[in-house]
Amino acid sequence: MSTMPAPFTADDYRARMTRAAEAAADAGLAGVLVAPGPDLVYLTGYRPAATERLTLLVLAAGHDPVLVVPTLEAPDAEEAPGASALTLRDWTDGRDPYAVTAPLLDGDGRFGVSDNAWAMHLLGLQKELPGTSYVALTEALPMLRAVKDERELLRLEAAGAAADEVYGEILQVRFAGRRETDIASDLAALLMRFGHSQVDFTVVGSGPNGANPHHEAGDRTIAEGDMVVLDFGGLKHGYGSDTSRTVHVGEPSVAEQRVHDVVREAQQAGFGAVRPGASCQDVDRAARAVITEFGYGKNFIHRTGHGIGVTTHEPPYMIEGEEQPLVPGMCFSVEPGIYLPGRFGVRIEDIVTVTEDGGRRFNNTPREMAVVE
Amino acid sequence: MSTMPAPFTADDYRARMTRAAEAAADAGLAGVLVAPGPDLVYLTGYRPAATERLTLLVLAAGHDPVLVVPTLEAPDAEEAPGASALTLRDWTDGRDPYAVTAPLLDGDGRFGVSDNAWAMHLLGLQKELPGTSYVALTEALPMLRAVKDERELLRLEAAGAAADEVYGEILQVRFAGRRETDIASDLAALLMRFGHSQVDFTVVGSGPNGANPHHEAGDRTIAEGDMVVLDFGGLKHGYGSDTSRTVHVGEPSVAEQRVHDVVREAQQAGFGAVRPGASCQDVDRAARAVITEFGYGKNFIHRTGHGIGVTTHEPPYMIEGEEQPLVPGMCFSVEPGIYLPGRFGVRIEDIVTVTEDGGRRFNNTPREMAVVE
Repeated sequence: MSTMPAPFTADDYRARMTRAAEAAADAGLAGVLVAPGPDLVYLTGYRPAATERLTLLVLAAGHDPVLVVPTLEAPDAEEAPGASALTLRDWTDGRDPYAVTAPLLDGDGRFGVSDNAWAMHLLGLQKELPGTSYVALTEALPMLRAVKDERELLRLEAAGAAADEVYGEILQVRFAGRRETDIASDLAALLMRFGHSQVDFTVVGSGPNGANPHHEAGDRTIAEGDMVVLDFGGLKHGYGSDTSRTVHVGEPSVAEQRVHDVVREAQQAGFGAVRPGASCQDVDRAARAVITEFGYGKNFIHRTGHGIGVTTHEPPYMIEGEEQPLVPGMCFSVEPGIYLPGRFGVRIEDIVTVTEDGGRRFNNTPREMAVVE
Repeated sequence: MSTMPAPFTADDYRARMTRAAEAAADAGLAGVLVAPGPDLVYLTGYRPAATERLTLLVLAAGHDPVLVVPTLEAPDAEEAPGASALTLRDWTDGRDPYAVTAPLLDGDGRFGVSDNAWAMHLLGLQKELPGTSYVALTEALPMLRAVKDERELLRLEAAGAAADEVYGEILQVRFAGRRETDIASDLAALLMRFGHSQVDFTVVGSGPNGANPHHEAGDRTIAEGDMVVLDFGGLKHGYGSDTSRTVHVGEPSVAEQRVHDVVREAQQAGFGAVRPGASCQDVDRAARAVITEFGYGKNFIHRTGHGIGVTTHEPPYMIEGEEQPLVPGMCFSVEPGIYLPGRFGVRIEDIVTVTEDGGRRFNNTPREMAVVE
């Protein structure tokens, strides 16, 4: 698992672009407009920064893919892994990039556009082509990146295994008397040591800080008796890891143990709801039902999970109202939590993939509450 | 210059938000919609990640600023430096954030929206309020962040001085026999050593790689006889640095020296055109005229400069067609270059601020070509 997997080839990217264009046509779209960011990485392997200079991949069924790029970025684009599967159309500073793009588009068409495309670029296209209309890509084609193939699954499994190694190591370090940021630094260093190229987040929420699910890590000094939420992940070989465990400095109280037990049971229930044909909201409902049953419903203040792939945070979302059926190859977090303001928080999270007959975890460290020093 | 400047206060942010709302009204806009990123940092000091969860600052003349935030990020937003100058309006996972935002907006109004707002959020607002219209903020209010006050100028001057220290140090390291990425690592470490909190770019373009102005740094081993374009910068105390010099490994040839001399004269001409009332394109024209005169016009394939502030890359742009008049307090790069495919490139760049009677450089290292080992 620690060897570098074979890189994706231009053929792989060509297949992904073809599939995206066909999915767009099936959804009644004239095409897909892909901005720098995870969609472009997924479809071409090209990783430019998003800037005020337009870079846009235009995909339409029956047409070859065209990548509109600023002239001075063209040499970089030509070296992208998927470059040979597309045509470059470059534009020079001072020209109107929307006028350059317009002839590639059906002027009356409806297009899916990357969620994170810059508003200025969308406005530029809307102005240039008033007859066009647009829809966010995750709304139009939520499944575009959601179902992973075998090679993607291997990468996600390896990233999860690396995160599990990190957790095993962090249990050995001293917590009491050190600041949250010290533990966060340890987590970041461990993620890199276990093969990550990028650290996305290292949440360390001790004591009352754990009750803020969005807290990252602060100057608070961790003390004996603290609950500590750990939530960390990043990218390894281009695919994400994300796992949470809640540990206790010294022996927990009966009340603390009880809350942790509820979250653990909820996490198990969410995992148990994963199977082909169930919906995303079924996973949320299963986890939430347990927490509600024990009287903590109002303390579970976020959705149960999110997809993972070339990012650590993407569709599908495990949330009430999301009726998207689960399909084998989807990968997402199952991460219920209970947050008690002023006291502590508990969150337990695994990445799970949908298999033919249920779910399979990519995080396999013990979910029982660990005691640290 | 190396001491931490006093932080901006809630009053500072209140004044900036008021000025933005008034400028919007003067421009015939119903308000300004500010997304996570540099606009939000400038107006509130708040630095959330841009995600699929809507965070949006709504500014309208005569109304108090309102920040729409996801509930689970509200605790972080409350700790932002400008938080006491605005009202938080939070929304919980599962609610429609655009429906939450709509009552804050004039349903028939035209709004300036941050260039880098996500397309999905703009589409959400357009769908919720079909009577509204939108324009990119740098198109509607290009001056919003362009004119720096005294305290911002001090920060930019300090960032420039730090970059100059970096250049002084890098001249002492060995180039020949080392890879571009090694020099880039040296530059990054030096930027941090001289007080930067963030490194944005460390371009090392040796030999033919220098002829690609967008080249960053690669595996190429630098050799005796190479020209090497160095272009580096980042953020110090929240404000940007960005400087370029082109050095030579060993003594340059007469031809190399001549190209460098042309760029140096062009850079001086661009700087000389900086004064209140001149236009952005005047700066570009002055630099370009020199390069064209010497027959390299087609080898100067980018604009002459870009603004700098809370980012290293923002309006105003020194480019043909940009008639924006220069105003004291504006800060931008003057960075002409000549790129000879297959051979080498030369670029010389200083950050310049507009003063009452001309321009002042924030980079003051020698612009003559340095010889390195």
